[in-house]
Amino acid sequence: MTPQLLAGKRGVIFGALDEQSIAWSIAEVCAAMGAKFTLTNAPVALRFGQLNTLAERLGATIIPADATSIGDMEKLFQQSEEILGGKIDFVLHAIGMSLNVRKKNEYTNLNHDWMLKTFDISAVSFHKMCQVLYKGDHMAEWGSILGLTYIAAQRTFPDYSEMAESKALLESFARSFGYHFAEKNKVRVNTISQSPTMTTAGQGVKGFDKFFGYADTMSPLGNAPALDCANYCATLFSDLTRYVTMQNLFHDGGFSSMGMNPKLIQE
Amino acid sequence: MTPQLLAGKRGVIFGALDEQSIAWSIAEVCAAMGAKFTLTNAPVALRFGQLNTLAERLGATIIPADATSIGDMEKLFQQSEEILGGKIDFVLHAIGMSLNVRKKNEYTNLNHDWMLKTFDISAVSFHKMCQVLYKGDHMAEWGSILGLTYIAAQRTFPDYSEMAESKALLESFARSFGYHFAEKNKVRVNTISQSPTMTTAGQGVKGFDKFFGYADTMSPLGNAPALDCANYCATLFSDLTRYVTMQNLFHDGGFSSMGMNPKLIQE
Amino acid sequence: MTPQLLAGKRGVIFGALDEQSIAWSIAEVCAAMGAKFTLTNAPVALRFGQLNTLAERLGATIIPADATSIGDMEKLFQQSEEILGGKIDFVLHAIGMSLNVRKKNEYTNLNHDWMLKTFDISAVSFHKMCQVLYKGDHMAEWGSILGLTYIAAQRTFPDYSEMAESKALLESFARSFGYHFAEKNKVRVNTISQSPTMTTAGQGVKGFDKFFGYADTMSPLGNAPALDCANYCATLFSDLTRYVTMQNLFHDGGFSSMGMNPKLIQE
Amino acid sequence: MTPQLLAGKRGVIFGALDEQSIAWSIAEVCAAMGAKFTLTNAPVALRFGQLNTLAERLGATIIPADATSIGDMEKLFQQSEEILGGKIDFVLHAIGMSLNVRKKNEYTNLNHDWMLKTFDISAVSFHKMCQVLYKGDHMAEWGSILGLTYIAAQRTFPDYSEMAESKALLESFARSFGYHFAEKNKVRVNTISQSPTMTTAGQGVKGFDKFFGYADTMSPLGNAPALDCANYCATLFSDLTRYVTMQNLFHDGGFSSMGMNPKLIQE
Repeated sequence: MTPQLLAGKRGVIFGALDEQSIAWSIAEVCAAMGAKFTLTNAPVALRFGQLNTLAERLGATIIPADATSIGDMEKLFQQSEEILGGKIDFVLHAIGMSLNVRKKNEYTNLNHDWMLKTFDISAVSFHKMCQVLYKGDHMAEWGSILGLTYIAAQRTFPDYSEMAESKALLESFARSFGYHFAEKNKVRVNTISQSPTMTTAGQGVKGFDKFFGYADTMSPLGNAPALDCANYCATLFSDLTRYVTMQNLFHDGGFSSMGMNPKLIQE
Repeated sequence: MTPQLLAGKRGVIFGALDEQSIAWSIAEVCAAMGAKFTLTNAPVALRFGQLNTLAERLGATIIPADATSIGDMEKLFQQSEEILGGKIDFVLHAIGMSLNVRKKNEYTNLNHDWMLKTFDISAVSFHKMCQVLYKGDHMAEWGSILGLTYIAAQRTFPDYSEMAESKALLESFARSFGYHFAEKNKVRVNTISQSPTMTTAGQGVKGFDKFFGYADTMSPLGNAPALDCANYCATLFSDLTRYVTMQNLFHDGGFSSMGMNPKLIQE
Repeated sequence: MTPQLLAGKRGVIFGALDEQSIAWSIAEVCAAMGAKFTLTNAPVALRFGQLNTLAERLGATIIPADATSIGDMEKLFQQSEEILGGKIDFVLHAIGMSLNVRKKNEYTNLNHDWMLKTFDISAVSFHKMCQVLYKGDHMAEWGSILGLTYIAAQRTFPDYSEMAESKALLESFARSFGYHFAEKNKVRVNTISQSPTMTTAGQGVKGFDKFFGYADTMSPLGNAPALDCANYCATLFSDLTRYVTMQNLFHDGGFSSMGMNPKLIQE
Repeated sequence: MTPQLLAGKRGVIFGALDEQSIAWSIAEVCAAMGAKFTLTNAPVALRFGQLNTLAERLGATIIPADATSIGDMEKLFQQSEEILGGKIDFVLHAIGMSLNVRKKNEYTNLNHDWMLKTFDISAVSFHKMCQVLYKGDHMAEWGSILGLTYIAAQRTFPDYSEMAESKALLESFARSFGYHFAEKNKVRVNTISQSPTMTTAGQGVKGFDKFFGYADTMSPLGNAPALDCANYCATLFSDLTRYVTMQNLFHDGGFSSMGMNPKLIQE
């Protein structure tokens, strides 16, 4: 039986869309470990995804919410507290979307209004979420907030385009809010920097297949699968990691610490 | 006599306001080292600052331009090429302003429209500037583009507020565009992470004096003065640093590498 | 009841001396989570410490071994496999000792023979241990090897003296061996960078009390206690963190991500 | 004419062997920029190299010295002061040699006595050198000490073997001594992390050609040549970089900031 690492914990999970979503795996793992949670996503995503299936199976309530709307965030956390019967122990932010990537604009030819919209959706939403949680006093003491990020925040992957900047922003918000939440009531805020993953979103990026293969070869353990990412997130939601905060944690099979893998030049 | 490290170089310098500005020192050093350049700032800044004095003394032309306007950037670089008589060898971006800091909003209570405006002024302006330089083919081969940043992009200084995120964005843009410009025509893009400096902007930040003193005590060499920052920028504009690119370079008297300075706990 | 996160796991724990040791807490937590393990320390440490008490309580066998001796390491892991009934799933390396610090030599006046001896004990022992585990094929697939380290490997804490270099070495060995072990049979190798801790070893360092207080004030969550470090290590020994490797993980209440804590300059 | 950036400066340059040495280029550049210096290398290296040619051409004195010998270091700096007519303004440490790499031992099968000897030659020599300079008060105020290093100190390049650990050590020594020298008389200590370079030493490493090509493709500007490294070192010896200390500076055409270069997967 799965260890009940999250027994009695209450959570809110953003960003599950379909079975390929990392957030979907996280929801499944959290449920298996004893947590209760609400699921949320943007109304438009809910229409195209299959979140209902997951929610029914796990007995979770779906609360549609636009992560860029302060009003929606306020309702989401108020309702989540009511549904779950108490303050929130953990939150997963797994949101990212680039208008310029979607429109196939080159990095040297971006539309800057779209760029700001990309930042609003993919990163400022994290600050808005934290601000609503903070001001509404929704987080339980020693709670844990996680965002999903990517190593493009530290190093250049040209095809990742303005999402590199979105992730740099996201990680900075997590550090900054980590300070404020720690001082408030010992809530931790971290980001997990995950291997490229075969999600519906990931597959939309130009040349994703080749890139996935490159990262897989470079990483001594190979790319980290979504299910393992879910397990890792669960440890960070648990009470076993109480003093880990303001960190960006690589879950990547070793990719981030490799300078060169001899396999890349052996053929 | 000052070594003519920048003899024959053509540049554009953003952000000089008054004698306390780092960009002001940079202009003076670049002139002494043999460079020609135009000076630019926002129309409103030009009204309140003393840039005319500097421009007259150094024989430089001022071109008013809003760094968030693509149109203004296009005109700025076209005119600069004409005035200077050729492609541009170096550009300094020294722009930063936070609406929420100015309005004394707490980090846990920010106005997100203002935040996006802050990002547009302090960081997206760097992408816009690079994009205009890139598309207009304004940079000479082996040219050098520099942005000024601060270590709050890596570590939390609570009073720095949303400027931490602005600087994280700025540094990411520099890395990303560093790749594209290198591939285009070997232009380098870097950021310099400078000690807290007693500029007009710096002094506007809450508790700046105490903070300046703390950094000064922590840094084994003390805080780096503006004039030394100008000298350092000059080396990065010169041909002596051609293979340095996509870097964030600390000019901080050692602050960034200190865990603790015994002087901080000796009293 | 404690979740049985390590049910059926076999381990070897270095470096428990007395109740203040982090390794002591780790042994207690691992036992509570269902693991079996052997305990080891240098013969001289066994004489002065209270490891027998712990071993008896937890039903663990003590195997005396000098971590700088390849022969002792070989015997240790062979015997551990026999006693535990199979290959080893996790190993904790918690060893550090500086001859120059003990003799109160200033960093600018070190004895270099002692320095090399310090490195041999505190860091090369990690490479020797890994090499013996690797060549003897002692690690089970997806096993986990951890070393304890300190942020002095990244930033200067003058009183930490040559232990800074020892920890830089240790972290580098962990990265390097992480590659080789991953390629061999998916074993992970990481280091945990722990807050200053009130251990018998820690308290021997000059000015430790003031320094402990400084770190405690700087860290938004305060310094991480030994018991929490033990919990964190347990997650890294478990199957929930299989794709985390070659990482240096800060367990420090946020210290590593702070530039300045306003509390430090408020008095 | 070359700008006289180092006019009147006195230096000591370690590690020039033949025309392919980076230190050889550095000596040539420093001479062209107006510096006077002594040259030093191990007696055995002097026998096989062509340092005499260089010394004669530049009018520099060669002082044979074993960098692992405190006595030799003391004589070296005393004599250098006498020959150059004053305290020393800059020192270049370019020393590295691995016994295990030379004997083609695998990283998982190293001889640990040789490893300690490798560390003594390649890294502890840096501490010894600094300690002699410090205790003998040989450095002029605002002097500059540089060591050459490689990114294997941060990321794993399996064939680089124990030199990864040597460089991690070296960089840590530079940070630590940077603090002490800054507090003493404002001397700066930094390391430059250079691209793979076609030196006699570099070419001895297994598979160096393929590896050189990989780094060259990954780096947007290509690998940095030795002459450019020399120019960069000169800027760090000059008065234009006075507040840069305790830094590891990448001179690598952008390699360190690349996650993936599309050219690597385009064929």
